[in-house]
Amino acid sequence: MEVIEVLHMNGGNGDESYANNSLVPQKVILMTRPITEAAISDLYCSLIPKSICIADLGCSSGPNTFLAVSGLLKTVDKKRKILGHKSPEYQIYLNDLPSNDFNTIFKSVPRFQEKLKMQMESGFGPCLFAGVPGSFYQRLFPTKTVHFVHSSYSLQWLSQVPELKEINKGNIYMASSSPSSVIRAYVKQFEKDFSTFLSCRAEELVTGGRMVLTILGRKSEDPCSKDGCYIWELLALALNGLVSEGLIEEEKLDSFNIPHYNPSPAEVRNLVEMEGSFMVDHLEATEIHWNAYDSDSLEFDKFKDGGYYVAKCMRAVAEPLLVSHFGEGIIEEVFPRYRKILSDRMSKEKTQFISVIVSLAKRA
Amino acid sequence: MEVIEVLHMNGGNGDESYANNSLVPQKVILMTRPITEAAISDLYCSLIPKSICIADLGCSSGPNTFLAVSGLLKTVDKKRKILGHKSPEYQIYLNDLPSNDFNTIFKSVPRFQEKLKMQMESGFGPCLFAGVPGSFYQRLFPTKTVHFVHSSYSLQWLSQVPELKEINKGNIYMASSSPSSVIRAYVKQFEKDFSTFLSCRAEELVTGGRMVLTILGRKSEDPCSKDGCYIWELLALALNGLVSEGLIEEEKLDSFNIPHYNPSPAEVRNLVEMEGSFMVDHLEATEIHWNAYDSDSLEFDKFKDGGYYVAKCMRAVAEPLLVSHFGEGIIEEVFPRYRKILSDRMSKEKTQFISVIVSLAKRA
Repeated sequence: MEVIEVLHMNGGNGDESYANNSLVPQKVILMTRPITEAAISDLYCSLIPKSICIADLGCSSGPNTFLAVSGLLKTVDKKRKILGHKSPEYQIYLNDLPSNDFNTIFKSVPRFQEKLKMQMESGFGPCLFAGVPGSFYQRLFPTKTVHFVHSSYSLQWLSQVPELKEINKGNIYMASSSPSSVIRAYVKQFEKDFSTFLSCRAEELVTGGRMVLTILGRKSEDPCSKDGCYIWELLALALNGLVSEGLIEEEKLDSFNIPHYNPSPAEVRNLVEMEGSFMVDHLEATEIHWNAYDSDSLEFDKFKDGGYYVAKCMRAVAEPLLVSHFGEGIIEEVFPRYRKILSDRMSKEKTQFISVIVSLAKRA
Repeated sequence: MEVIEVLHMNGGNGDESYANNSLVPQKVILMTRPITEAAISDLYCSLIPKSICIADLGCSSGPNTFLAVSGLLKTVDKKRKILGHKSPEYQIYLNDLPSNDFNTIFKSVPRFQEKLKMQMESGFGPCLFAGVPGSFYQRLFPTKTVHFVHSSYSLQWLSQVPELKEINKGNIYMASSSPSSVIRAYVKQFEKDFSTFLSCRAEELVTGGRMVLTILGRKSEDPCSKDGCYIWELLALALNGLVSEGLIEEEKLDSFNIPHYNPSPAEVRNLVEMEGSFMVDHLEATEIHWNAYDSDSLEFDKFKDGGYYVAKCMRAVAEPLLVSHFGEGIIEEVFPRYRKILSDRMSKEKTQFISVIVSLAKRA
């Protein structure tokens, strides 16, 4: 797949959700559409279920919340029409952490249902919605009831900051200067979390059920490679600047690490194979440039550089973590510095995110 | 069942939900507990399901949200221990209108789950929660998936104000002075709504599934009898006072009617029998005095009379309706007058609400 333009945000919602996937540009989300379409088409054609249960994990609350679900519904409806079948009944589970803004999602459900009915024409549905609050590193749905799991830019979030035996001096995530015990702890935490995720979903999915997961990852097998860690290294740089200026205590920064991991496609494949419940149907890594702007956005302003938009996105993601550790006070100090660093690097280097997309089928 | 003391409220939440059932004192909710316990015990013993799906319709958001569910879970857990069975898996659906405050409910789910685990000891659950936004006068859950439906003080709310062919002069609900076409329109709307409710639930419940519904109703077969309508007649009196004082236009009051109906036990039975999907297992009407105070409440204040508490409760229920029709301005005018009227009547007459409680089983 071609490198696509990106990282121009729709604005944060101030709520804690897994993904802040509402910040991801629609173009990026649509990138996985051919893969999710293929997966749900396969599922529908092989099981022809009367009732299809679809779960979106880390749904967030914003303009993208219904985007993936909408695509999945359209694909099934098209398929069932071609096959001359009656519409299945749809149960849509929207999941995120309990602190996500579900009220806003729920208020837009009736309008979304109306829109669907109009778009799909006669005989569609019913399409029923439920919000499921909770961490996807634990059970969320009843046993063998779910047909399709979708998750977009959420699984790079760990269930917790790994327990570190050494101080990760000057860093806030894995970096080439991190002690090897820190890197091992991050790797172990991801292995544990991702395996738990797979086991929980394996209990919930029906045999033949499918999952398409998009994870912010890396291409290189080196966990500290630039494509996974660089964005956080630059934030660490800004925070270290505040330490030099005496605005943050050094010990305070020493004890700050983010609960995040960017896996490689090989790591994802290995963990899936070790857990054993799923077959890998498709696996790919795709590049997303930091410095492309989204010309669709109303917010685009030619006087603002790429650093502005990337910093804005990262602020929405990182602000809750920073505030809970350092307090409100540093926010207006750190982000202007971060933006400057980002703009500088983006003007000199090729900077990109990597999306790891994996399509899985549950074994019998 | 004995007449019990009541109508001392826990305070409103300002959100629109069906029941404002969070305003109903725990004592009133607990009144139905023997009936719900019997129903869910029967269900569990006859089906012994591995997974039990329980829906609370009009769950509201407040201190009572988890009360009914908690009682149901304890009953099943006790029973399965006596029978020496492994715990079933629980799927709990909490339903209310999309404008209900689900965020607050969801934030307390993890604590509630922890508490349950501690209370039930080893082997309980998993107990999974989902919020379902939408009107219960339409489909909410997938076909034949729900085992038990509970609804407390929600079904007296109609899906809409009935279409009236004549002006309901001076009234805001059915009253003895209402034109007979108005009374017929209210009766018809309830018949339509309650039948729709039964048909939707019949599709969703498994065979042998159970429902226990508590509805604010009346004892008399006269739809305009005092036990159903009096509380609204007194609110109409306060509003008419504002018309006399020139604070509300007469035409504005003429066009205000509430989407509410207090059915009698016989009406409920007839509609259940006509719809045909359910058998009536138990049906009763219970009196609840307006003027008893709740001695458990921290809010009790001996200098405040019963009128204070009843007006407070009714304000939480009626304020959204009044504001959307008359605007914010009249609220501080109408409720002090209403309170005075209530206090006066309560000191002179026997004033009571009627709860109609019906326990239903889905036919094969």
